[in-house]
Amino acid sequence: MKYSRSYNFSAGPAMMPEEVLEEIAAEMMNYHGSGMSVMEMSHRSPVFQEILEQAESDLRKLMHIPETYEVLFVQGGGTLQFAMVPMNLMKNGVACYIETGSWSRKAIAEAQKYGEVQIPASAADRNFTYIPDCSDLDIPENADYVYICENETINGTAFSHLPNVKGKVLVSDQSSLFLSRPCHVEDYGLIWAGVQKNVGPAGMAVVIIRKDLLRKDLPPYVPTYLRYQVHADAGSLYNTPNCWSIYCCGKVFRYLLKHGGLEAMAERNREKAAVLYDFLDRSVFFTGTVEKQDRSLMNVPFTTPSAEQDGEVIAAAKAAGFANLAGHKSVGGLRASIYNAMPKEGVEALVDFLRKYEAAHK
Amino acid sequence: MKYSRSYNFSAGPAMMPEEVLEEIAAEMMNYHGSGMSVMEMSHRSPVFQEILEQAESDLRKLMHIPETYEVLFVQGGGTLQFAMVPMNLMKNGVACYIETGSWSRKAIAEAQKYGEVQIPASAADRNFTYIPDCSDLDIPENADYVYICENETINGTAFSHLPNVKGKVLVSDQSSLFLSRPCHVEDYGLIWAGVQKNVGPAGMAVVIIRKDLLRKDLPPYVPTYLRYQVHADAGSLYNTPNCWSIYCCGKVFRYLLKHGGLEAMAERNREKAAVLYDFLDRSVFFTGTVEKQDRSLMNVPFTTPSAEQDGEVIAAAKAAGFANLAGHKSVGGLRASIYNAMPKEGVEALVDFLRKYEAAHK
Repeated sequence: MKYSRSYNFSAGPAMMPEEVLEEIAAEMMNYHGSGMSVMEMSHRSPVFQEILEQAESDLRKLMHIPETYEVLFVQGGGTLQFAMVPMNLMKNGVACYIETGSWSRKAIAEAQKYGEVQIPASAADRNFTYIPDCSDLDIPENADYVYICENETINGTAFSHLPNVKGKVLVSDQSSLFLSRPCHVEDYGLIWAGVQKNVGPAGMAVVIIRKDLLRKDLPPYVPTYLRYQVHADAGSLYNTPNCWSIYCCGKVFRYLLKHGGLEAMAERNREKAAVLYDFLDRSVFFTGTVEKQDRSLMNVPFTTPSAEQDGEVIAAAKAAGFANLAGHKSVGGLRASIYNAMPKEGVEALVDFLRKYEAAHK
Repeated sequence: MKYSRSYNFSAGPAMMPEEVLEEIAAEMMNYHGSGMSVMEMSHRSPVFQEILEQAESDLRKLMHIPETYEVLFVQGGGTLQFAMVPMNLMKNGVACYIETGSWSRKAIAEAQKYGEVQIPASAADRNFTYIPDCSDLDIPENADYVYICENETINGTAFSHLPNVKGKVLVSDQSSLFLSRPCHVEDYGLIWAGVQKNVGPAGMAVVIIRKDLLRKDLPPYVPTYLRYQVHADAGSLYNTPNCWSIYCCGKVFRYLLKHGGLEAMAERNREKAAVLYDFLDRSVFFTGTVEKQDRSLMNVPFTTPSAEQDGEVIAAAKAAGFANLAGHKSVGGLRASIYNAMPKEGVEALVDFLRKYEAAHK
């Protein structure tokens, strides 16, 4: 082995494919004969333009994104998207948010600054351990959009089918399941995803927005950087973008295309998650915290009989080389994030460890 | 030579020190025994925390930043700072901006969304080829701050001494001269700099702000991400930051400390710029466009007798391995950006090329 690598179960930033990292390292001192690292390139130079265009075109291929949608690369992460979505899409000043956990709640709190937020469905009553029924939502006639967090990273739930939005625009935060399974883009008005979970280095969100939703008539207080239309008009080059993240994400897009696209990823992710969930379902010591039909294939939260024992397992796992298994500080417990780049062997090794731990401690 | 590297005169993103790039490549697959790349690390893990803290502490050492100032790492580049500055610092709704070129004008246009902008000094009358006298500005009693772009990247001017702000808060966009010379931080209320010129990969601005200027009582429409106080309270970890840029910039901070700090950089930069300016002053074919006393040591704009010949020189230079010598599309001409990481040999080689070109074409 050339170097030793950890099985890293971080919720994000998270693992990247090893062959992608090797390519990036090899191109560091001189990218394709340019005489420079990608970090040193003018964002307006032909060599970087090609990287940007290739990344966008590969992402379009992967997700089958129609020409009626713009693809934008924007800095500021989810926190900025929480503001950009209402600032850009609230025309009537009313939107519906489905409350499924920590990240939809953050989105709700930010949207409330810019208009009226209605919550036609919530999982708050059972501590966000399930996805509420969204087949017949009470959506007001003048609602500008319906917003979901399609995979709650902290709570470990995921929508297995999309809400019935009754003709309204669907907006989805796909951060934690982005590119982990096929996606029918036409079902959405806007998809956004922080790239630091399933794709590449933090500091960028991908925004996929239907062109008719781009508006110039925003309130004057909306900063230039927060206007989707500004980014769209400039092809994500209104100002210097996170060039490095575009480059690395572009490599991951190519990697995914090469390895069978999103159908193959979905198959692989189902298999991987099944290894862990099957173990949890049989264990008497460890318990998955989410209702079966709403489980995320990306973020798997579970607990032991006590918070104290949770901590002991996390420490023992760390010592055994399994990094970042603690649940988010707001919910505690354990959590294994098993994004695209986590190999099946990593999940199998973890289950093996947990099984032995259980045998020794139950 | 292990690899061939270009002399890259890009205005940004721009050259980085070769030894820094080599270290980054070497640490790609397994950073300091962590078993991961820095791109894969949880931003809340101890190993990344150490990178972040070291970067901040090294920057504080380099610039002698007192404890009364916060150091923030924020995404969104200059365009977001143009909005954040007035959104956070306009209390009375009035600010003075010194108009010295393209970037101060962009800052002015954005600030006008949030309050009254007064322009007590401007270089517009002579096409932004000089820095106006700022020794006795007409600053209203209720002005919240005075804003300068300390080095105009496109126009090639730089303040050789700071304006007399008559007790008001001085805000400076230092992007293009950041860390290129010593800086007396106490003279400023806020310094911000996009890192992609003198430091590291694009996608981040460093903000150095006096703690008493952090406010919680901002208008409700100010997005969470755009509040300096939110970033300060969370130690730049309110949300996932641009971890990679923090890591790379941190390496450059260390590199600068190791190589004599900002005093040594200033000396080196003066020598480097003199090589080019001395040539331009003696040339009959090439002409520097900025008045001598206001010349930037970082961005050197110059012209030939015609736009056509400008283009010919740029093309010939490119063929000879000197990249990115075109002036910004808004002003034309040529421009050599010679930031910290441009070696003196690069400037000497360029001058040698230009001298030969002149001999052959004059």
